[in-house]
Amino acid sequence: MPGKSILPEGGRTSKEAVIHSALKLFNMSGYDGTSVRAIAADARVNIALVSYYFGGKQGLLEHLMSSFFEGYLDCLENAAKQDNIQPNGQAEDLIVTVADALITYQQKYFYLSRFVHREMTLDNQLVRELMASYLMKEKFLLTQLLEKAVPGFGKDPLQADFTLLQFRDLIIMPFLQPQLLRKVYYMKPSESSFRPGYLRYIAGWADRLLEENRRFKRRQRVSQVR
Amino acid sequence: MPGKSILPEGGRTSKEAVIHSALKLFNMSGYDGTSVRAIAADARVNIALVSYYFGGKQGLLEHLMSSFFEGYLDCLENAAKQDNIQPNGQAEDLIVTVADALITYQQKYFYLSRFVHREMTLDNQLVRELMASYLMKEKFLLTQLLEKAVPGFGKDPLQADFTLLQFRDLIIMPFLQPQLLRKVYYMKPSESSFRPGYLRYIAGWADRLLEENRRFKRRQRVSQVR
Repeated sequence: MPGKSILPEGGRTSKEAVIHSALKLFNMSGYDGTSVRAIAADARVNIALVSYYFGGKQGLLEHLMSSFFEGYLDCLENAAKQDNIQPNGQAEDLIVTVADALITYQQKYFYLSRFVHREMTLDNQLVRELMASYLMKEKFLLTQLLEKAVPGFGKDPLQADFTLLQFRDLIIMPFLQPQLLRKVYYMKPSESSFRPGYLRYIAGWADRLLEENRRFKRRQRVSQVR
Repeated sequence: MPGKSILPEGGRTSKEAVIHSALKLFNMSGYDGTSVRAIAADARVNIALVSYYFGGKQGLLEHLMSSFFEGYLDCLENAAKQDNIQPNGQAEDLIVTVADALITYQQKYFYLSRFVHREMTLDNQLVRELMASYLMKEKFLLTQLLEKAVPGFGKDPLQADFTLLQFRDLIIMPFLQPQLLRKVYYMKPSESSFRPGYLRYIAGWADRLLEENRRFKRRQRVSQVR
């Protein structure tokens, strides 16, 4: 789990200040456009401290990325546990529970989430390594979740993967493209008021997916009777 | 419309070579991590030519972004025209026609699309300007399209905007996150074999959206009769 250090609040240690300044500058100028010197200056710490804490800029990047994904996957794994389906609950509820947990997590670590998602669109060695570990695990957990929630999920593997990717995108998109939501759609994805309306949309999406499945099953049963 | 210059084929002029090298290096190291010197070296042209053609790196960036969006919006506007609904056709068809046109466009200009979408996740002056012009127009055209295709669209403006954003994301996501699709889901979003299966998914998405609407209307009619 990322520590409180990621939060942009006052009274931070010099390590926290370095993380805060790094995220701020990375989000403004990108990772490659930001120097260790600029981070140290913004955090008002000696430049040698950045090497001391993180072993340089690449180490800082790896620390940020791993922290995010470890917390994110913890959230996903906990929310998707079998016992989160209430005895009289519906499969939609499980999908919404998972979405809620991940959206809450990303709102809490808003600047970190934004930075990580953006960085993951690049094509480099670190991204490939993170994909092979964290995003493979994400795929595994989301597949498990949707198999549990949607009867017959995975019968057409390609269409199942597209469903999975669309669910993933519902969760990620507001944090990968917050500027678009703010400037063009007048939404505030970093604020708590954003959550309820968006979760209602996700619940509707899950409901439509499950309803199609139910209609398909009904038709199957009818044709068997005939 | 972006010229053939964006395509990575042989026999190009020096201007085309600059664009090709810029996209290649931007996708590897990001815009801020790429120097005009590196672009000129990769394109094997004199560094002064980059200033001559584009007025420097910022001008080159603006040229790439505008070229992409002008072609993209042309595609969207043409595909969404009323007369694309066949007399005996369905509203799903219009949604799929538009998605098809935009996916084909982005496959044709794959490296450009990827670069532009990635750059649009940043927070800077140019991005804000492009959002206020091109992405506002995109929002307007997509709203028109969905109002035409989905009866009752926009009654709940917030949920309507989420539907719109999800449709936009279906179109954009494979080109913003091609690495994820390749490395984790073993898909090839740049190849023509990707299109049919993905359009089938989009058709299913549109169908579920419209079916929910039809069910809602049926319930309304039933309750009026009672």
